[in-house]
Amino acid sequence: MDHESRTPTLDRVASPVDLKALSDAELGTLARELRQETIEIVSRTGGHLGSSLGVVELTVAIHAVFNTPFDKLIWDVGHQCYPHKIITGRRDRMGTLRQKGGLSGFTKRSESEYDPFGAAHSSTSISAALGFAMGRRMGMAVGDTIAVIGDGAITAGMAYEALNHAGHLKERLFVILNDNDMSIAPPVGAMSAYLNAIAEKGPFAMLKAAAEGLEAALPGPVRDGARRARSLVTGLPGGGTLFEEFGFEYIGPIDGHDMGHLLTTLRAAKARASGPVLIHCVTVKGKGYAPAEGADDKYHGVARFDVATGQQVKGKSNAPSYTQVFGDKLTEMAARDPRIVAITAAMPGGTGLDIMQRRFPARVFDVGIAEQHGVTFAAGLAASGMRPFCAIYSSFLQRGYDQIVHDVALQNLPVRFAIDRAGLVGQDGATHAGAFDIGFLSSLPNMVVMAAGDEAELVHMLATAVAHDAGPIAFRYPRGEGVGVDLPATGEVLKIGKGRMVREGKGVAILSFGAHLSEALAAADLLAEEGIDITVADARFAKPLDTGLIDRLLDTHEVLMTLEQGAEGGFGAQVLHYLARTGGLDRGKVVRTLTLPDRFIDQASPSEMYAEAGLRAGDIAAKCRELFTRMEPVVVPMSRPRLI
Amino acid sequence: MDHESRTPTLDRVASPVDLKALSDAELGTLARELRQETIEIVSRTGGHLGSSLGVVELTVAIHAVFNTPFDKLIWDVGHQCYPHKIITGRRDRMGTLRQKGGLSGFTKRSESEYDPFGAAHSSTSISAALGFAMGRRMGMAVGDTIAVIGDGAITAGMAYEALNHAGHLKERLFVILNDNDMSIAPPVGAMSAYLNAIAEKGPFAMLKAAAEGLEAALPGPVRDGARRARSLVTGLPGGGTLFEEFGFEYIGPIDGHDMGHLLTTLRAAKARASGPVLIHCVTVKGKGYAPAEGADDKYHGVARFDVATGQQVKGKSNAPSYTQVFGDKLTEMAARDPRIVAITAAMPGGTGLDIMQRRFPARVFDVGIAEQHGVTFAAGLAASGMRPFCAIYSSFLQRGYDQIVHDVALQNLPVRFAIDRAGLVGQDGATHAGAFDIGFLSSLPNMVVMAAGDEAELVHMLATAVAHDAGPIAFRYPRGEGVGVDLPATGEVLKIGKGRMVREGKGVAILSFGAHLSEALAAADLLAEEGIDITVADARFAKPLDTGLIDRLLDTHEVLMTLEQGAEGGFGAQVLHYLARTGGLDRGKVVRTLTLPDRFIDQASPSEMYAEAGLRAGDIAAKCRELFTRMEPVVVPMSRPRLI
Repeated sequence: MDHESRTPTLDRVASPVDLKALSDAELGTLARELRQETIEIVSRTGGHLGSSLGVVELTVAIHAVFNTPFDKLIWDVGHQCYPHKIITGRRDRMGTLRQKGGLSGFTKRSESEYDPFGAAHSSTSISAALGFAMGRRMGMAVGDTIAVIGDGAITAGMAYEALNHAGHLKERLFVILNDNDMSIAPPVGAMSAYLNAIAEKGPFAMLKAAAEGLEAALPGPVRDGARRARSLVTGLPGGGTLFEEFGFEYIGPIDGHDMGHLLTTLRAAKARASGPVLIHCVTVKGKGYAPAEGADDKYHGVARFDVATGQQVKGKSNAPSYTQVFGDKLTEMAARDPRIVAITAAMPGGTGLDIMQRRFPARVFDVGIAEQHGVTFAAGLAASGMRPFCAIYSSFLQRGYDQIVHDVALQNLPVRFAIDRAGLVGQDGATHAGAFDIGFLSSLPNMVVMAAGDEAELVHMLATAVAHDAGPIAFRYPRGEGVGVDLPATGEVLKIGKGRMVREGKGVAILSFGAHLSEALAAADLLAEEGIDITVADARFAKPLDTGLIDRLLDTHEVLMTLEQGAEGGFGAQVLHYLARTGGLDRGKVVRTLTLPDRFIDQASPSEMYAEAGLRAGDIAAKCRELFTRMEPVVVPMSRPRLI
Repeated sequence: MDHESRTPTLDRVASPVDLKALSDAELGTLARELRQETIEIVSRTGGHLGSSLGVVELTVAIHAVFNTPFDKLIWDVGHQCYPHKIITGRRDRMGTLRQKGGLSGFTKRSESEYDPFGAAHSSTSISAALGFAMGRRMGMAVGDTIAVIGDGAITAGMAYEALNHAGHLKERLFVILNDNDMSIAPPVGAMSAYLNAIAEKGPFAMLKAAAEGLEAALPGPVRDGARRARSLVTGLPGGGTLFEEFGFEYIGPIDGHDMGHLLTTLRAAKARASGPVLIHCVTVKGKGYAPAEGADDKYHGVARFDVATGQQVKGKSNAPSYTQVFGDKLTEMAARDPRIVAITAAMPGGTGLDIMQRRFPARVFDVGIAEQHGVTFAAGLAASGMRPFCAIYSSFLQRGYDQIVHDVALQNLPVRFAIDRAGLVGQDGATHAGAFDIGFLSSLPNMVVMAAGDEAELVHMLATAVAHDAGPIAFRYPRGEGVGVDLPATGEVLKIGKGRMVREGKGVAILSFGAHLSEALAAADLLAEEGIDITVADARFAKPLDTGLIDRLLDTHEVLMTLEQGAEGGFGAQVLHYLARTGGLDRGKVVRTLTLPDRFIDQASPSEMYAEAGLRAGDIAAKCRELFTRMEPVVVPMSRPRLI
């Protein structure tokens, strides 16, 4: 007994090749069904809804006009790819989105041949597309290359570098600017204002093509107005847009929700383009779903929700998030210290800086997707005498690494790095994991590197960072809720390079760095039930190390195990280097480092990801038990001579 | 008995405040003397001559018009700062330029209050200047801020990010574009073509000022033509330059060697600017010294030379440089394998890719100062099926770190990283040291990390990289000459993760990673003279480690010492983690890691820098001797039970 499908057209699409059999009108129908399907799926899974709804028509039009996967379609950031996934053979797995073992929330090469270049960080698509295009020039089996990039993402320096190079190489390449005037947060900067100015001047569907040949290929009503529209659209009669200055043909702006115009434009561009072309589409984030269109964040990232009302099902939290604690406490400290300023790179909400921004708008700088500039701008502020807090997620801070080395550490400038999303982050998966910051920061001379054992510690570290004018200092903390400890009214300034003893036992000592402290304590609880009382210490600092604490732990225990939410080469490596330097390793003690494993870990809940990493309390307890058992004859005090 | 000074005006300038007493005509004279002084100094020291000669007038004019050091003058890259150093109280130390204990070849905060923000990497100046400007807005004791940035440096994404943010913030700020159409190599990209187009259209000294107020403040002959000149200069009647699109007032182009125009323009801009202003100066690299102006590289970086003839005194080299070996052999392999392409970021000569470029121009991509794009562009090429070699100096590769993580390692794409200038590099000092790449690469899943023990090893590693399609692979090698070993005609494809035994001894084993192998062998020679025969092995791989070799060394020696030209957290850390994981550290063996120390090391010769780092053969031998002596009772074989 078949119900009539609510998506009869979509049901006919097993892969993009099926779009070739659809009329333009049917493609319009398909887009409507695809939008409904996307809303329904995300209402059950949660995810990046707003940006996906903004590109439904674009997704259909691109796959209809181009020949994916031979033609390479590269979605910048990739979080807008849900409609793309639905029509590229992944419809039946959409219910597993962002879950363990399920589909990634981003494009991913290993998931589909329709994802020729995965993403999740912003502004990489033009570079990748240009790489494919040059591969084609040199004989690789590649068709056309299409990068779809948002107006937020195109403000990043990396996108500019790619436009600059593409304009120089003059290879055929399509860049579709998906201009919804809204990335995670409203975009900032002069470039954004420039795009707005173009979009406001240009009536939709009045196309402008720099090449006469391309204009001639446009359909009648569009072509007639094209030449006249040039000045309307660009405001630069006789000249061109900024993109034309870079050597691109510029077409647009066009209405990114008008299937007819999209198809016409893409077909014309495909037929005639000889070099790089930029097609400027104006879209609406959250398009076609009233609750999303009406929301401030356009449902950028949502929890599960009720389709009829748009009401999101948000879990009850027991403790404030680290992000919230950071935002609240930084704002409090900023109220007392006018030298505190904050810098972020297009993540005011995600870092909690929006809290300070509401109270001290002039002292919070959102530089846009521009981590390189953001770090050095912070260094300039520090050099002027301010106390800048540079709040950037761990994985995005990688974008500013040279600036941390060259502008901050080398000059020993007191920039404070507040590193949110340290460790494994859950549904956003491997691309957003903050796995490497401990290592890449601790290797740098002059740098102080802290990690918060719990949210109260975060408050202390914040106070410590405010007080630390001697050089750069970083503190990392994870995504999500704290452990529920009481928050101090004001943070205590910690002594640089001093850890703390948390639980005294014997035999085995865990020296934890950061938020895995709670897992270490849980492991200790498990072991205590078996009569094994281990020691747990909180290192607080990966650099400088609390060498006194390490020495004491090693003197009084047979096993020393470091623990961190990060890759090898970080805290554990710092401890090992110290022990190697001072002969601590020569003593026949058992030293172990627990770190993230040497592989990327796919999306799941954070606890599932840490289970996959072998870093849950049970895993830690098992390691301790194994080592404790092995060395037991030795630690029974004084009973017999030590044997090797 | 006083000779008459050849620099009577310069002799009156102990610091910039003395410029206030000079007439405009005298400032012109000063510039002429300063140019001669610069030439004479660099003829004795070597250094960055061409770029310094290009900014002589600019240096004088800025210091004459602005009030440094209260006003903050920030030289981008900083290698053009010699005239600036001469007139900011460092004239008597110029003979020590780029030498141990002497003046840095770049701007440096610790050297002078006239260097408010040091540099050496490109494109940081606008970000830093904006930081100072916002510090001033918030009450810090800062005057005006002036960034001087070259046309090469401004093509970098970081500079674009800064322009974008500055245009948004609208704070008073001066950016002086020093347009000599020539960075280390001729600049590439659409932006460069755009700047050329402006410069060609605009007659010098025909100023254009976006603000009417600013125009009115200009001197007579300049003002009269200004409005008319707008269209001439920009080609965009009614519109503006690209910089105006970003919210800057644009003035220029002006002749950067005409002192009168410079002074007039800077005074007018200083008097009237309310927001960010870009002053476009056209200069000639090597200006005023015929041998430099006539040379292809405009004497960008020179050895000591004869002032009369321009003849440089170049040292005889006994062995080809690693760079040369890489360039030659890559070109040979490219001749046999059409899938080999190469990418660099404005350093074709420095990386040796100019050799391949001459033979296969279409297969070498110089992306400009754009490491972020360059890495992801290489990833796109790899995804298309090509075999890209991304050749970037170690310290500049830091600029592409997130792209290495997110676009290359995460997707396991076979990009080959050829990392020149690994380790300490000599006269360019700490900013150019390649200290961190071993660590930041080895932490990444999927990455293979090699280092060449000598130039023959480099040939093998190149062949290995060509053959390695399974994922990303990196190989590092130092600046300068090889050790003089015979080069194989063709490289051998090494087994991934396999090192080699170089010298068999006993007691102490040095496991060397990279080009410090020669120092390890020299240390072994020193020890052999004392009757101590140590083992030296070449790890070849930091990742994956040759665990079999490590186990064997540990089984058969009492002391294992790792050695590398890099910071803690790199190769030694990888070995320690392995030993911790497998219980190798529990055996009471003596394990040590020799790395760069935890501090930045100032310029000197590479061997002086390694001496400062405690990493010369004598230092290594001393360490071995000390450890050997300590464990001697143990290694006398079988003679007595082992004592701890």
